[in-house]
Amino acid sequence: MITIAVDAMGGDYAPREIIKGTVFVAQEHSDVQFILVGPPRVVRDELASSLPSKNISIETASDVIEMGEQAAWSIRSKSNSSIVVGARLVKEERANAFVSAGNTGAVVSAALLTYGRIKGISRPAIAVVVPTPVRPVVLLDVGATADCKAENLLEFAHMGCVYAAKIVGVVNPSVGLLSIGEEKSKGNELVQVAHGLLEKSGLNFVGNVEGKDISLGKTDVVICDGFTGNVVLKLMEGLAGVIFSEVKQVISGSVGSRLGGLLLAPGLRELKRKLDYEEYGGAQLLGVDGVCIIAHGGSKARAIKNAIKLAIQTVSKGVVKEIGDSLVAEE
Amino acid sequence: MITIAVDAMGGDYAPREIIKGTVFVAQEHSDVQFILVGPPRVVRDELASSLPSKNISIETASDVIEMGEQAAWSIRSKSNSSIVVGARLVKEERANAFVSAGNTGAVVSAALLTYGRIKGISRPAIAVVVPTPVRPVVLLDVGATADCKAENLLEFAHMGCVYAAKIVGVVNPSVGLLSIGEEKSKGNELVQVAHGLLEKSGLNFVGNVEGKDISLGKTDVVICDGFTGNVVLKLMEGLAGVIFSEVKQVISGSVGSRLGGLLLAPGLRELKRKLDYEEYGGAQLLGVDGVCIIAHGGSKARAIKNAIKLAIQTVSKGVVKEIGDSLVAEE
Repeated sequence: MITIAVDAMGGDYAPREIIKGTVFVAQEHSDVQFILVGPPRVVRDELASSLPSKNISIETASDVIEMGEQAAWSIRSKSNSSIVVGARLVKEERANAFVSAGNTGAVVSAALLTYGRIKGISRPAIAVVVPTPVRPVVLLDVGATADCKAENLLEFAHMGCVYAAKIVGVVNPSVGLLSIGEEKSKGNELVQVAHGLLEKSGLNFVGNVEGKDISLGKTDVVICDGFTGNVVLKLMEGLAGVIFSEVKQVISGSVGSRLGGLLLAPGLRELKRKLDYEEYGGAQLLGVDGVCIIAHGGSKARAIKNAIKLAIQTVSKGVVKEIGDSLVAEE
Repeated sequence: MITIAVDAMGGDYAPREIIKGTVFVAQEHSDVQFILVGPPRVVRDELASSLPSKNISIETASDVIEMGEQAAWSIRSKSNSSIVVGARLVKEERANAFVSAGNTGAVVSAALLTYGRIKGISRPAIAVVVPTPVRPVVLLDVGATADCKAENLLEFAHMGCVYAAKIVGVVNPSVGLLSIGEEKSKGNELVQVAHGLLEKSGLNFVGNVEGKDISLGKTDVVICDGFTGNVVLKLMEGLAGVIFSEVKQVISGSVGSRLGGLLLAPGLRELKRKLDYEEYGGAQLLGVDGVCIIAHGGSKARAIKNAIKLAIQTVSKGVVKEIGDSLVAEE
């Protein structure tokens, strides 16, 4: 029996949208148990407005870590916060995964401290699945480790390949190293050293890829440091939003274009959905010895639902064990 | 009298599109002189197919540096290449600016070696103007200095402000430091140190900005290391292209949507143009003691025309002198 702990208090639309999303999944997955972590009264009040689900329980966490709080400090001083309590449920094997849309830094720190790292991994990475017209691309790290060594990037590549194989379902995933030119000699010092390590890694390493190659879906996995990856992720979200709102302006420009927009509306809606992060569940914290899904801070019920489904999938596919095994096989 | 040297042999569509673009501008700007740098016979053959312009001359350069060649090596071994000869024309004061769509690394190296650096600048930066719905954003460095120290980022900020003031026409431009969170404590080690320097710089520094803030036009100037900036630039180009081609697919999906697309076509064309790098002239190499414009390798005549116009503007506004003066004022 799989059990998923959900941070009821994390994210811009907590607790309402978080609980709504959890209830959705609980009704679909009667074979999975759900634990909502938060102040019981708040959680119960929200649950009261939805259909009762036998497979949802509540775990008390009286404190909340706010979005802006400093991560390391907050998880130490708020040991009774929903983030720390949620991570602890996994450590104590009362849950198989923890899902939170709260303060990313605090979730990473809590998981790292509570779960510990997988043997052979020195730094964690956050992986996201980026939608592209060609294929879903696993991009990591998008923010767990801002300053990386070349060895970290090699570890990220191993983890990204397991993730692409298990979650996206790709056989022998191709790996690209994000750089600023295709030649081996291009890039900063970090990627030049990492390139050499990746060549000898035994992975299906195809060499450097550039910024455009992420959105063009050139490889199954793209590796970068957490600073670059986070800039990339937020830029992609921002730029897609800007272009769609500009298209909307074009549509509202005249009677003719409004009619045109009406005719295109279903297709454009579908396209927007296709490029929307909410469809893709949330980010996976890899390298820690347990499953931790970081949903977007702006998640509404649908995004939470997808994040929880990703957690279920990650648990049932045994991603964490597989990462450990792949590293042992490497040694 | 302003004189602009143009690399006739640089770029994917050289020499045809380069020369076509130069002829366009030469006809519009009869008060400006143009020197096409390349093998005379090749250049003359191309010129033969266009209207004769009295203000275009040819400077012999028999060699060509190819796109993939290693920069430092190629400019040393090919001293008679169009890139090296073009840069030399500026150094010898026979031209006020050099424009090339050739091998970016080679152009940067040639300008750096030939022009030298502006006093007070330790590393060059490439600046581009990014179109956003709110305002044009000056982004630098997008690829000249992949590994930066915090002091370099401070210098980039000074140069970016002069550029925004002179070329975009902004009074007291606001400066953002590209990072992965708004708080001062967020980011990698580099930006954390740079943040402190920028706070004390006397510039209109508004703090950290994130990837999405570039496309949202949050500040007039965005500063980053050349690795991150190059990834960002290429991602923006790639993603915009992907979204537009997806919109095209939506339009071709059915009879109704094709009609819708027809009604929206003028607006979408205008939007595409608005977000297109070709409209924005090309990248400016800042920090070297002379004007050097790096046009996109894929430039066609229109992009070259805009790059040359940017060169004329940069010369007539005295950007290089102003950067030097602003640094002296700082001391």
